[in-house]
Amino acid sequence: MTQKWLEICFTPAIFSEHADREAIIVVVDVLRATSSICNAFANGVKEIIPVSTVEEAREMKGKGHLLAAERDGFVLSFADFGNSPFNFTADKVQGRSVVYSTTNGTGIMNRASDCHEVVIGSYLNFSSLCSWLEMQDRKVVIVCAGWKNRFNLEDTLCAGAIADRLLRGGGFRTICDSVHAATDLWKAAREDLMGYIEKAAQRSRLRDKGLDDCLDFCHTFDVTEKIPVLRDGKIVEL
Amino acid sequence: MTQKWLEICFTPAIFSEHADREAIIVVVDVLRATSSICNAFANGVKEIIPVSTVEEAREMKGKGHLLAAERDGFVLSFADFGNSPFNFTADKVQGRSVVYSTTNGTGIMNRASDCHEVVIGSYLNFSSLCSWLEMQDRKVVIVCAGWKNRFNLEDTLCAGAIADRLLRGGGFRTICDSVHAATDLWKAAREDLMGYIEKAAQRSRLRDKGLDDCLDFCHTFDVTEKIPVLRDGKIVEL
Repeated sequence: MTQKWLEICFTPAIFSEHADREAIIVVVDVLRATSSICNAFANGVKEIIPVSTVEEAREMKGKGHLLAAERDGFVLSFADFGNSPFNFTADKVQGRSVVYSTTNGTGIMNRASDCHEVVIGSYLNFSSLCSWLEMQDRKVVIVCAGWKNRFNLEDTLCAGAIADRLLRGGGFRTICDSVHAATDLWKAAREDLMGYIEKAAQRSRLRDKGLDDCLDFCHTFDVTEKIPVLRDGKIVEL
Repeated sequence: MTQKWLEICFTPAIFSEHADREAIIVVVDVLRATSSICNAFANGVKEIIPVSTVEEAREMKGKGHLLAAERDGFVLSFADFGNSPFNFTADKVQGRSVVYSTTNGTGIMNRASDCHEVVIGSYLNFSSLCSWLEMQDRKVVIVCAGWKNRFNLEDTLCAGAIADRLLRGGGFRTICDSVHAATDLWKAAREDLMGYIEKAAQRSRLRDKGLDDCLDFCHTFDVTEKIPVLRDGKIVEL
């Protein structure tokens, strides 16, 4: 068995420092992109095509695709719906292909596509994701989508929860300071996770826009066993 | 009084996201650049000229300057001495001008020079620095030098200690997730700071190179009351 190293990248701005073609990349964007993607697969979506720019999103809509797209929490005017996990219902997405573009999460998925594998992580698929990662004989880099290249708390805590699990039972090792920081923050927060999340700037942004109805749901463990994975530019079920 | 906002920037890679021409920038590079600079002023250095590149350091040495310079912990071959705070003794630096170049810390000092003020922070000048910051009617951004654009623990903890003090008594407010993370990590670490620092990758790097004799010293509060500040490309006493 090769050494299973574990790293956390706190923002896409430093992804090049953590990128490794041999590694499995776990993208985490708790509020709300990766939670929404996990829920879409729970509800039977066929595939999700992440696009990085508003222009690409517009072009894909023009070609007749179903489009979920937002910037700064606001649904793009030409999109079918926005970034709430509650939009990705079975009646809308089951068996369908959905184009998806968000402020932070979808860009980094495409940037990581050269790596061994890019999987989608959230609390919603926590246990199945961790179990799968534990079975791989690979370095794992958890990438927090952050907020416009800044560090954020909600992705860090979820990354810390995943790291804590992998380091305890999964045979992983780390020499990455971000892993120590994230796991210690997770340990400080986990007893009252929703209370801790009150500190997060994104929590306030969602409240200000009336978009915080999904807050509890996005912090719910194991809603699904599905592990979305990027293959040839499309997110499909592993 | 204007609102005194507080932010922490975890790595120079995202400095542009936090940069604000109206703000005071506090540069923190605990192991070892800003600890060494504080110690140099404690020992009577006249001024320190931070240079970003090895080429600039070589050029300045050629002009007859006293040069302290390292990369990855190794003293540059043409330098007078390296990056340990114990090099900046009174017999070497008192009354003199020293050119200084390090792996992480000195580059960000120069990049921040457009901001209202750039001051040098460490545990060594903690109380005088915090007292001075509390008296200013300004936004403060604490910038962690990090390690080659990555997040690091030792700078984060010191930034967290400063932030904890400013938020408790200094009339500062924050909506910056990095501040919450750093203060919570500081609270988790402060009871056994040197034990916590054992987790830091830089702690291992210094040990491997036999450069860890300064570890305790760099985590000592209030060795000096001097506050080094960048003025016209030179670090002088405030």
